[in-house]
Amino acid sequence: MERKGNLMTYRPDIQVFDATIRDGGLVNSFFFTDEFVKALYLANIRAGVDYMEMGYLADTDIFKVEDFGDWKFCKEDSLRRIVGDNPTDMKLSVMADVGRTNLQRDLLPKEESVIDMVRVATYINTMPAAIDMIEYASSLGYETTCNIMAISKANTPDIQEALTLLADSPIKAVYIVDSYGALFPEQIQQLTKMYLEYMEPAGKQVGIHAHDNQKMAFANTIEACSMGASLLDATVGSMGRGAGNCGMELLLGFLKNPKYNITPILRFYEEYTLKLKEEGLKWGYDVQYLLTGKMNLHPSSAIAFTKEDRKDYSNFYHQLFDLD
Amino acid sequence: MERKGNLMTYRPDIQVFDATIRDGGLVNSFFFTDEFVKALYLANIRAGVDYMEMGYLADTDIFKVEDFGDWKFCKEDSLRRIVGDNPTDMKLSVMADVGRTNLQRDLLPKEESVIDMVRVATYINTMPAAIDMIEYASSLGYETTCNIMAISKANTPDIQEALTLLADSPIKAVYIVDSYGALFPEQIQQLTKMYLEYMEPAGKQVGIHAHDNQKMAFANTIEACSMGASLLDATVGSMGRGAGNCGMELLLGFLKNPKYNITPILRFYEEYTLKLKEEGLKWGYDVQYLLTGKMNLHPSSAIAFTKEDRKDYSNFYHQLFDLD
Repeated sequence: MERKGNLMTYRPDIQVFDATIRDGGLVNSFFFTDEFVKALYLANIRAGVDYMEMGYLADTDIFKVEDFGDWKFCKEDSLRRIVGDNPTDMKLSVMADVGRTNLQRDLLPKEESVIDMVRVATYINTMPAAIDMIEYASSLGYETTCNIMAISKANTPDIQEALTLLADSPIKAVYIVDSYGALFPEQIQQLTKMYLEYMEPAGKQVGIHAHDNQKMAFANTIEACSMGASLLDATVGSMGRGAGNCGMELLLGFLKNPKYNITPILRFYEEYTLKLKEEGLKWGYDVQYLLTGKMNLHPSSAIAFTKEDRKDYSNFYHQLFDLD
Repeated sequence: MERKGNLMTYRPDIQVFDATIRDGGLVNSFFFTDEFVKALYLANIRAGVDYMEMGYLADTDIFKVEDFGDWKFCKEDSLRRIVGDNPTDMKLSVMADVGRTNLQRDLLPKEESVIDMVRVATYINTMPAAIDMIEYASSLGYETTCNIMAISKANTPDIQEALTLLADSPIKAVYIVDSYGALFPEQIQQLTKMYLEYMEPAGKQVGIHAHDNQKMAFANTIEACSMGASLLDATVGSMGRGAGNCGMELLLGFLKNPKYNITPILRFYEEYTLKLKEEGLKWGYDVQYLLTGKMNLHPSSAIAFTKEDRKDYSNFYHQLFDLD
């Protein structure tokens, strides 16, 4: 099994994605203050982060505007309130969910927007719709990726079929997304290898978006990285749905490229992220997430367990067998 | 790189060690109630745990008895108060630190003790003293291991010299101990391979004791396991010094041998471990531990940071450079 480098290697192909607002927004319904988003934007620039995901491009016909903060919808004026014209080297991305986005109505031509990249999130069974969205966003001038979610539930031949389609599409990269936090490094190793076999000949990259249900988000991210994945998602303080994601502070502490700098992230964490925890927002590894991850189940029941402040982990475990 | 199995493999050579009282005792100076220790003992038996470490065999000439709970010293009558004659399949171990233990005075002949195994903990530069202790404990009839601590600070030729000595000693196994939580899976992979090259021809095993400074305790444990390490240390709720250890609940959720059962551990966690957290005991991953781990430093400064309830992670990071 050929690796693309070891602990000492500087890999110029690596690009770090901050997904704090987008995945973290699933914790607080995207009600971040402008001060928070602006401070994170500046911290990411200073830290050398390559892309910052500003949120979702959700359809206001499906989601009520009053139920969510601005970052669920990422209107152009919301974005510009924070970044102006974004006169920096850091690119901005938004996520577009298949079936929950109206790209034709909501996505401006690239020259009118500060958005650089549209990441299309799809389950394996909605690939044709994802490809349509990718082609449309691409035709407007955006970079695109395809983020195939819940890959631990997908069948290998279906993944291979999706990868074949994507190799012929205008995407920059395809993402391995472990939505359930169910995967271990040896599985990530095999998946990365398979994704690269389809993507490399087409001149495309592979990315990784991991969840921490079994405390594997960082370990899986560096395993994928060492196998050749180059787009690496992380969030400050691991903020993200349920057990959260790969911590930006862990990832930047690990990467050897001197362009990355952990200090602005530490400062943001102590000044902003900790306040959210003090205000009562809950995310991060806990035993209920281990149990849904281990059983390869959607974390929704573990999130409900957390909200209800339950501590009967052993009962919860046995209730999960009814969901399996 | 040859692996000893994959995710589906049932490995009869694996033995799970519960180190909750011993490593967790470093969090509360070993002041566990008898009820706690007894409940853990019963939970471990029901969970199929192979060894339970009851604490240290510390020298009362060095440590004041009144400053610590009983499990710092593991006197025979303390042990028997919990386990009687231990009429079970689960074996009991104690840890003996080089330079802090008086084996000649404190270790009874095996026939008079419920202890089955003495694990001798040493730094690489005190190997001769460790070998003396191993030979003495062995001569009294005990199983022994050698736990070479802070291996991330040791030089490879020194480790190889130690392994050569240990291959000729009466130990059952030698442990890879990542005291600083500094190591990543690819380093664990190389270390496990090297330890096995020395130990397998001598009919001895390799173990792993990991710390969670960089959220790698579980990932490193299963990496070592898949490379052939067979003695796996874990603690309930990851309770252990600083960032803590590999969680027993994570490890038992992962292992495929049907003899292991996660439910008694979940029940113990919700009934006993959580109470310690509610009472204010602190352990587990946090950013200060990531920083000492990343810099390959002893966690003592991060433990002090935690006790002082400091949150100035970025200052702390830059203070660490003075310790390097």
